[in-house]
Amino acid sequence: MNIKEIVSEIRPVSQDWLRRAQEHTAKLAIPPRALGRMHQLAEQLCALGRTLQPRVDNKAFLVMAADHGVAAEGVSAFPQEVTAEMALNFLRGGASINVLAGNAGARVHVVDMGIIPELAPAVDNGGSLLVRKVARGSANLAQGPAMSRAQAEQSVRTGFQLASDLFAQGVELLGTGDMGIANTTPSTAVAAAITGQDLSELVGPGTGLDQRGLSRKRQVIQRALEINQPEAADGLDILAKVGGFEIGGIAGCVLAGAYHQKPVVIDGLISSAGALVAHALCPEVSGYLFAGHCSAEPAHRLMLAHLGLEPILDLGMRLGEGTGAALAMGVIDGAARVMREVLTFQAASVNQG
Amino acid sequence: MNIKEIVSEIRPVSQDWLRRAQEHTAKLAIPPRALGRMHQLAEQLCALGRTLQPRVDNKAFLVMAADHGVAAEGVSAFPQEVTAEMALNFLRGGASINVLAGNAGARVHVVDMGIIPELAPAVDNGGSLLVRKVARGSANLAQGPAMSRAQAEQSVRTGFQLASDLFAQGVELLGTGDMGIANTTPSTAVAAAITGQDLSELVGPGTGLDQRGLSRKRQVIQRALEINQPEAADGLDILAKVGGFEIGGIAGCVLAGAYHQKPVVIDGLISSAGALVAHALCPEVSGYLFAGHCSAEPAHRLMLAHLGLEPILDLGMRLGEGTGAALAMGVIDGAARVMREVLTFQAASVNQG
Repeated sequence: MNIKEIVSEIRPVSQDWLRRAQEHTAKLAIPPRALGRMHQLAEQLCALGRTLQPRVDNKAFLVMAADHGVAAEGVSAFPQEVTAEMALNFLRGGASINVLAGNAGARVHVVDMGIIPELAPAVDNGGSLLVRKVARGSANLAQGPAMSRAQAEQSVRTGFQLASDLFAQGVELLGTGDMGIANTTPSTAVAAAITGQDLSELVGPGTGLDQRGLSRKRQVIQRALEINQPEAADGLDILAKVGGFEIGGIAGCVLAGAYHQKPVVIDGLISSAGALVAHALCPEVSGYLFAGHCSAEPAHRLMLAHLGLEPILDLGMRLGEGTGAALAMGVIDGAARVMREVLTFQAASVNQG
Repeated sequence: MNIKEIVSEIRPVSQDWLRRAQEHTAKLAIPPRALGRMHQLAEQLCALGRTLQPRVDNKAFLVMAADHGVAAEGVSAFPQEVTAEMALNFLRGGASINVLAGNAGARVHVVDMGIIPELAPAVDNGGSLLVRKVARGSANLAQGPAMSRAQAEQSVRTGFQLASDLFAQGVELLGTGDMGIANTTPSTAVAAAITGQDLSELVGPGTGLDQRGLSRKRQVIQRALEINQPEAADGLDILAKVGGFEIGGIAGCVLAGAYHQKPVVIDGLISSAGALVAHALCPEVSGYLFAGHCSAEPAHRLMLAHLGLEPILDLGMRLGEGTGAALAMGVIDGAARVMREVLTFQAASVNQG
């Protein structure tokens, strides 16, 4: 299925089910709207899944990893080989996303969307790697497009297919995660291209750039936008010119959630860049999305605002991998359970006041 | 053990273990402090428990319920019998705290600290009620003290004993919750007496007062403070004059956490009133406390600031019962696991940059 066909099948979330869910909330033995955001989360789950019994027990992560040619510009505090090293750490189960996904009861699937080295598909007694290399790293977006339009489409379709497979296997809540040294640079470029915000508002330190590094990163992104002239209304053009393979993969996951009417929790800056690409292709995706947290990276709040999303957590995190989404899964699960399990005033024989 | 004896045994959290925990965090395969608040939560668990292997798998709630004489002043949107009705709902497992504690893997223990009616100690196939009535409801604090000093001491010692029993049974993380129609009124009075803030900054709608009700509530609290003249430095005096039995019970839970060097997660306004009473008795308790969330009630942020606590969640909740604490338990558990399970750069063979 090509992207046009995918998008043509995506429907907005159901306003009718949203209304029914709100009516059900009002009957629960809880003072009016006293669980605040929790009610909205629960009702969004109802609206997108067309049910009053939302269930997100079966949880999984797709952690998309890829390398970036722009790393050559010195825009990261870490060397490029760390992408592959951390992907191996994910497979071994020793990284933050393994621990926090485990805490949320979510399985972690690691995808090689374009890491430069070849990784053994299974490591030690760890998980298996889904090898879906679009290429061995993207090109340097400060010198030309990060990838071809065909590669951009391939990365989105790959993410769509992987997420669709998980939904077909019964996954009820999908989290997106990322690994890719230098990937806050393409993500911030995507944010700038789509939101039109000034770079001085957007560029942040990523894994820990100093002031000089930050200034260099801003110049690199500026150059990338000038050289490539991405078209704000064309998600694939933006992805091809200033994105990355894992960003495209995440965009595909986001489209898959909307296509299959399943909730997707996005993580921080990189996941939100993927969501912005998907949103540019099909604005209806927002109704199927949950913003796990607000990253400490300055661009993130503006990106979420463009997507029409309010973050669930705000813990000053800026790690990526899917960690913020993993923590938020517990809250989303709680919201679903409130909708399913809390008794009504009537059933509980409680005076409604 | 009397309260003086309890307080004399409480030590500050270990700065030495805090430093060791920070050193360990720096070795993990995570860019410097990239998990933000999560690192602080993990390190606080280490400092208070004197360990680098913090573990909060065994979780429980004490949900303290009591009636309030001040309900006669029309300060709540719900009638007084709802206290008992909701306590029965807790025992039946049909309330929000049951659902959200279950979501966090925490057991719920319901305590009758002073509900007016007698409740059957076991209901249907539900949980059992811990009957520890200090009295059948407190007195109307708008006309005189809510309780005697002896009752205040009894309520604190009761909470201390119940929490100590749970810690002795292996509980590693205790959440506090409450039920008591009208109890935002004494809680706000406690906040005013201890923080010295103006009532116009503090008084909120509770379960849903309209503007007229809100104005009446403000006058009632004003009168309570004028008539009773609680002594800001004397936690028991404040509890006796403008508190409630569940607030005293929660204060006892907070003291027990510090006494046994175990973490306690407080919920919203009522739990924080209990924490303020405990803090007035012994300021060191703050180091053992986690603020689960920030309530939508206006007083809450100021109360947390007085306690030196930063809320973990901010979801516009204002239900009580322990619901915000229950949701935060998942985050705290995640922080503990990160400290225990994430590999170091060295162990994971990842280049540290």
